[in-house]
Amino acid sequence: MTLVVDPRTGLKRLPDSEFAMRLARTRQTVREAGLDAILIHSNEADFANVRYLSDYWPLFESAGCIVPAEGEAILLIGPESKEYAEDHSMLPKIRTMIAYRESAEPDYPELSVSTFNDVFDEALGGKPLTKLGLVGYSIMPLPVYDGVREAFPNAELTRADDIIIKQRIIKSEAELAVMREAFRMSEAALEAVVPRIRAGMTELELVGIIQKELYAAGAEYEAHAVYAFSGPRTRHAISRPTHSPILPGTMIQLNFGARLAGYSPSVGRPLCVGRMPDEMRTLVEVGRDAHFKTMEWMKAGVIASEVVSRFYDYIRGRGFGDNLLYGPCHGLGMMEVERPWMESTTHYPLEENMTFQVDTFLQTPTYGLRWENGVRITADGVEELSNAMMDIMEL
Amino acid sequence: MTLVVDPRTGLKRLPDSEFAMRLARTRQTVREAGLDAILIHSNEADFANVRYLSDYWPLFESAGCIVPAEGEAILLIGPESKEYAEDHSMLPKIRTMIAYRESAEPDYPELSVSTFNDVFDEALGGKPLTKLGLVGYSIMPLPVYDGVREAFPNAELTRADDIIIKQRIIKSEAELAVMREAFRMSEAALEAVVPRIRAGMTELELVGIIQKELYAAGAEYEAHAVYAFSGPRTRHAISRPTHSPILPGTMIQLNFGARLAGYSPSVGRPLCVGRMPDEMRTLVEVGRDAHFKTMEWMKAGVIASEVVSRFYDYIRGRGFGDNLLYGPCHGLGMMEVERPWMESTTHYPLEENMTFQVDTFLQTPTYGLRWENGVRITADGVEELSNAMMDIMEL
Repeated sequence: MTLVVDPRTGLKRLPDSEFAMRLARTRQTVREAGLDAILIHSNEADFANVRYLSDYWPLFESAGCIVPAEGEAILLIGPESKEYAEDHSMLPKIRTMIAYRESAEPDYPELSVSTFNDVFDEALGGKPLTKLGLVGYSIMPLPVYDGVREAFPNAELTRADDIIIKQRIIKSEAELAVMREAFRMSEAALEAVVPRIRAGMTELELVGIIQKELYAAGAEYEAHAVYAFSGPRTRHAISRPTHSPILPGTMIQLNFGARLAGYSPSVGRPLCVGRMPDEMRTLVEVGRDAHFKTMEWMKAGVIASEVVSRFYDYIRGRGFGDNLLYGPCHGLGMMEVERPWMESTTHYPLEENMTFQVDTFLQTPTYGLRWENGVRITADGVEELSNAMMDIMEL
Repeated sequence: MTLVVDPRTGLKRLPDSEFAMRLARTRQTVREAGLDAILIHSNEADFANVRYLSDYWPLFESAGCIVPAEGEAILLIGPESKEYAEDHSMLPKIRTMIAYRESAEPDYPELSVSTFNDVFDEALGGKPLTKLGLVGYSIMPLPVYDGVREAFPNAELTRADDIIIKQRIIKSEAELAVMREAFRMSEAALEAVVPRIRAGMTELELVGIIQKELYAAGAEYEAHAVYAFSGPRTRHAISRPTHSPILPGTMIQLNFGARLAGYSPSVGRPLCVGRMPDEMRTLVEVGRDAHFKTMEWMKAGVIASEVVSRFYDYIRGRGFGDNLLYGPCHGLGMMEVERPWMESTTHYPLEENMTFQVDTFLQTPTYGLRWENGVRITADGVEELSNAMMDIMEL
């Protein structure tokens, strides 16, 4: 097991060598891209890129990271997170900035903070900023972008997501060890939760039981907002649990995972209190068959879009084409949904040590179901990162 | 009790009339500001502005809302949230857009989505967009901003946060009823959790117990990521719980709340397993005294910055000026931290039915403590929204 316990916090994390390797690789890529530096952005909901380099993950406030082509990286945080960041960050250089404050935009008149001029001057050792790569374009907010733009009106700003994303796509041995452990915790929670499900319990009461078991198993946080849906909510690809009671003979859909050291697995199971109606049981079985088939079609060298077309063909061939929304896999790592997706438009070859959620979701007008497990791509196929409780569950 | 149970979801929410009133008021303000429309943004971490008008709160994806000066408002969502939004949104008109997709940026080649041209054309009934207000500047991401900019290169874009924020600052009777109920749930969870705290339990195990009790009490989600810190983590204004065990005689800091119908209270208590060292107990008492004093200084008509200077003077007068970081209150509503803050630079008068968290935080180099409760401003003082377990707790 390659997790270490951080002496400052008692929190489990990846070893120092992993962060040193990521930083060296990033700096090298920044140089090769002809950039002076990159500016990375993360927020509470998508913390991954900044955490990948620093192990710091923001809440209430957001965070950034400057990696210059030469010289030391700097973690950029909001004014209230100084002590938190000092205890958690793998990057020793930390600066507080107003651009990363809470969305309620306090002034903090008593605190002194850095400006974008200050931190880029420090990062580049006084050299002018002429070409900056932005990482996290899809979530970069206007105060950060406008702040950089105003400080450096003549600098060229380009999208540079790939500099971090390409590293994140192929998992190291240390990352895989963490992900195996995080799935083990998630399965332990699943096995503790399922026997406690009762008709009459609300979806949200069930969420509380799941949360308790995730933390008892060793989670540092929920891998994503817990899914515990029943009845018509199960047809939602994305949803929130409600105060509705679980009813016998209707679909129940669980999807949850234990986040560990920043990695966010999810296990998804459809189940029922009492017997499933025949039509429902058939669709659950079709979904499970497609789920296992999808794993059979995956191995290093296979083109992602081919897995997608085989999946669509398979479901259509079984006569359930109308029940498709998307599928059948998305990338997995620090975010439970991350690059690369598998879609009919994605023609990249699968590579060894890519990790995916096999996410088999079928919809009807009144319910839906999702079988979901993690896999690692190997030379010959996949390593299943989770596979507990794959029977048809009628409680 | 003014909560209604939504027939589509079984979820508790504000009555239809509340949403109708907000929408009418917003449309009126858009007209008065001479805008064609506003575009509101929310994400998973800061869902408030979109939820205020629609009751929809995104996860994985983000969300927007167009409110035109004349005509029907439109909820804008990501491609995977269609069924979820149809079941939750108070706005019947809902459009899916790529700009609101997940940060992993899938293509969704099989789905048809709207463009910014489509949705503004629909919202404005074909009239050209010349002047658009942006709400949620601090979190608005580049794909949304650039998307609008590209679709309407000649439109004037202005910040219009105040159109929603000013409404959110003064709470209605229905909102206050929800907040009282959410604080009641939070206190019920506090009273269930405290007797179960034991030395040796990790901070994260305690988080699991808190989560279970929050949902058992009726929460729809955690009001903010749960704070259960011990020892040196308690000096962090913002932090994350860890795998460290709780030790006797060291500070334990709890801060959590039950989110209900989108409202996010927090109760904060410092406590200790076993006796507090004398110096710690003294600081806990000073903090509690300052906490109650702060409430005494607040009433309609008082200038916010005067509460701040009295708080600073009081703490300094007791000889603990070095233990201050910020203080003493921030706005409370849908976000646990929202406008208005109370700072030495905020010279607005308190108004009846503003709601605040009284957040009394004192730091030392080795630990910190925070007493936190919600209050409503009245003509004569404050209504305490929480006040359970305010004794010095030595378990």
